[in-house]
Amino acid sequence: MDSEQFGEAGRQMIDYVISYLENIRDRRVFPTVKPGFMRDLIPADAPEKPETWDAVFADIERVIMPGITHWHSPRFNAFFPTANSYPAILGDILSDAIGCIGFTWAASPSCTELEVVMMDWLGKMLKLPEEFLACSGGQGGGVIQGTASEATVVALLAAKSRRIRKIKEEHPEITNMDILSKLMCYASDQSHSGVERAAMLGSLNIRLIKSDKNFAMDAKILEETIRKDKADGLFPFYVVATLGTTPCCAFDDLTEIGPVCKREGVWMHVDAAYAGSAFVCPEFQHYMKGIELADSFNFNPHKWMLVNFDCSAMWIKNSAELVEAFNVDPLYLRHDKQGLVPDYRHWQIPLGRRFRALKLWFVLRLYGVEGVRAHIRLQVKQAKEFEDLMAKDERFEIAVPVRMGLVCLRLKGPNELSEKLLRRINDSGKIYVTPSKLRETFVIRFCVCASRTNSEDILYSWNVIKEYADEILAESTTNQDKK
Amino acid sequence: MDSEQFGEAGRQMIDYVISYLENIRDRRVFPTVKPGFMRDLIPADAPEKPETWDAVFADIERVIMPGITHWHSPRFNAFFPTANSYPAILGDILSDAIGCIGFTWAASPSCTELEVVMMDWLGKMLKLPEEFLACSGGQGGGVIQGTASEATVVALLAAKSRRIRKIKEEHPEITNMDILSKLMCYASDQSHSGVERAAMLGSLNIRLIKSDKNFAMDAKILEETIRKDKADGLFPFYVVATLGTTPCCAFDDLTEIGPVCKREGVWMHVDAAYAGSAFVCPEFQHYMKGIELADSFNFNPHKWMLVNFDCSAMWIKNSAELVEAFNVDPLYLRHDKQGLVPDYRHWQIPLGRRFRALKLWFVLRLYGVEGVRAHIRLQVKQAKEFEDLMAKDERFEIAVPVRMGLVCLRLKGPNELSEKLLRRINDSGKIYVTPSKLRETFVIRFCVCASRTNSEDILYSWNVIKEYADEILAESTTNQDKK
Repeated sequence: MDSEQFGEAGRQMIDYVISYLENIRDRRVFPTVKPGFMRDLIPADAPEKPETWDAVFADIERVIMPGITHWHSPRFNAFFPTANSYPAILGDILSDAIGCIGFTWAASPSCTELEVVMMDWLGKMLKLPEEFLACSGGQGGGVIQGTASEATVVALLAAKSRRIRKIKEEHPEITNMDILSKLMCYASDQSHSGVERAAMLGSLNIRLIKSDKNFAMDAKILEETIRKDKADGLFPFYVVATLGTTPCCAFDDLTEIGPVCKREGVWMHVDAAYAGSAFVCPEFQHYMKGIELADSFNFNPHKWMLVNFDCSAMWIKNSAELVEAFNVDPLYLRHDKQGLVPDYRHWQIPLGRRFRALKLWFVLRLYGVEGVRAHIRLQVKQAKEFEDLMAKDERFEIAVPVRMGLVCLRLKGPNELSEKLLRRINDSGKIYVTPSKLRETFVIRFCVCASRTNSEDILYSWNVIKEYADEILAESTTNQDKK
Repeated sequence: MDSEQFGEAGRQMIDYVISYLENIRDRRVFPTVKPGFMRDLIPADAPEKPETWDAVFADIERVIMPGITHWHSPRFNAFFPTANSYPAILGDILSDAIGCIGFTWAASPSCTELEVVMMDWLGKMLKLPEEFLACSGGQGGGVIQGTASEATVVALLAAKSRRIRKIKEEHPEITNMDILSKLMCYASDQSHSGVERAAMLGSLNIRLIKSDKNFAMDAKILEETIRKDKADGLFPFYVVATLGTTPCCAFDDLTEIGPVCKREGVWMHVDAAYAGSAFVCPEFQHYMKGIELADSFNFNPHKWMLVNFDCSAMWIKNSAELVEAFNVDPLYLRHDKQGLVPDYRHWQIPLGRRFRALKLWFVLRLYGVEGVRAHIRLQVKQAKEFEDLMAKDERFEIAVPVRMGLVCLRLKGPNELSEKLLRRINDSGKIYVTPSKLRETFVIRFCVCASRTNSEDILYSWNVIKEYADEILAESTTNQDKK
């Protein structure tokens, strides 16, 4: 494919992107394909000779689209949102063309430098404490990770490195392996599966702390558990607090958990993967009260801040502890500016990294902070609209207060009813929702995801849910009558 | 930015990409900026109001380009190549627009299914043993990871999980922590820093085995070390063999290492990050002889196979062992097709994942297998051209035989001469090369990287090296005269 052909294909692809996104409501949100469907649609081997662009382009609709779950359809109310915006797509095209691998500053200085400044921009938008920002001149700074799971692992490694150093200072006789076997992580039983996986990855023990009636981590139980573990000779070192949990968007209270961590000398990592984007609005910043007690903080602009995946923003107060945790330094990666600027290879699990700050830069400039705030506020408002519609229907109940864009609803009565409702909704393909279990209570997670969602879409989604609720409750009455 | 504005901006960006890549030789390959340069070029805070596209677009040249190391310039002879092709860029645009997060099959079936088939295509192109392929109907299969480092970690986790299960069957009384403290990883002292980091991440011990005179892992020493460790009550479980090392593109001999691993019951992971792409050519497949003895294999199409970063291809013979290593299964991720198709979230460290198979599909179809082979052969030929030019100059010597696109050269005599030469070359900004140390010998790594490189570029690069060699050797003679 020469540059002329690419020019033509590129313009065609830009038009396709517009047509796909602007008409996305016309597509069935959840596909009807069966596992293995694609083997019948494409050859078993790569072609020996080059094919034409026209053949490839035609296969987007023939092969790919029939099996796509359309995450950017307003009918998609599952999981949490993943971001998608025109400015981010433009940033990614540029990133692809430049195609640098920014593992060190020298490997492409702009790649590192723009990231440093963008993480400062973002940190200030969220009113993060100065200590987290590179512009404060201290050891703090931000970095773009691929996902919140990776941020959780990276923070764990820094915390582990800090704790081991401290223990060794106090007890030089103790072996590394003896320490490792006694290191303890903690998170709420509502925290993301990525936290358990982080501990697993590091071959470390983790305790999931019981959440309270609001599904927030119980700080008292956390404190008791840490103290008991210490009394038993174990080394508590890492707590993950969550702001906006996946099952129901609950918020851990940092003003309660933070002081426990300080008192006990434990690293507090704060995972605000979804809800963090909302902190750009002053009215939501109270949810992160106590953030100054955290050692590291993370949220995903690729979820709710219009920056396409992957862009997970992470800050750490003392980056030296991170670099120390990754102290592998081969000659082929050394350069003569080391120490003056971050070498992000020491801040992440992989070595290679794309120029992801570009899409963040494009989004923040082309939306402005105002535009980002407007996006968040609109989706929160739409979730409230949905809640209001539901509140008028006495057959439904809400499982937890609606705070962001997520509504956890259920039919009153046994779980089976709501389970049946969820299946019926998703089988219809009209909208797509996902399940959650809050202790023994099954709920349907309805999330406002697509940036194109309007009030009519909210009404449409509600009517779909209502339609199948009518059906199921009618059947259930009929069945009871039969009995 | 509405769809009309995006259409216009998108077309402008496509034109910019063409102009950037087609005229890349005109730019200084390595920038002259100083650490912190960007803070002076952009505001300290994000804009409140949206800016215009024209303002953003103009800043690409004003802010970004002055600090770019141009990885796709034929003057870039550093590190290893990172891929960049028009078909891959088109695939990425589509991936960005679809913007699905394919962590489970149901999350977007096409995302998983195309990846399964593409990994079969790729595996067959490389003539991987059937057991690695999903189409064989067994437990084998491929997955796209972000980087080779991640593949190394993922394979380590599967190996660890297998070994622990086995030890527990034989010794039910032994504790997990006792096992962990005795687990041992092995790799050559020439292996990538990612291998040491993988062990570090898992809090596990690793031994770097001395390489032989060809910088290949010494299988005898490996065997002796494993046996000694076993005799000492330790549990050897994981060996990483490298095909095409980073320092000098050396090849470990799988026909020697593989049988040791089989005899000792140790998992063999093969890391062919760079050189793996070459195995699409029959004449290079002999380098992977013994691959049937591996448990997992990995190479990076995003290095040498025209697929933009990130696309690291990994295969595993028994995927069940991988899934078992990641056995966290929350309700919000469950769906009713589980078990029939891979849920790739169990195959990787992060939860989220982009639709990366698209760019691989586009590249393989628009180049054809022939086109991919031609690309590899051309770059190997160009490395030979460079070697031939150098061979005529008696002041230079080659450190290791040239097998792929990498030439490790040095000035005869003390290391200082070559160190000085490397600095002088890179300071000139005419070409960009990186250092390596092979035991006590300092070498300059000259790698054919950019896909646009032609024979004139090779001659140009050689002349730059020669020019500064003349300069340095003249100075050195003058200095000696003065003494």
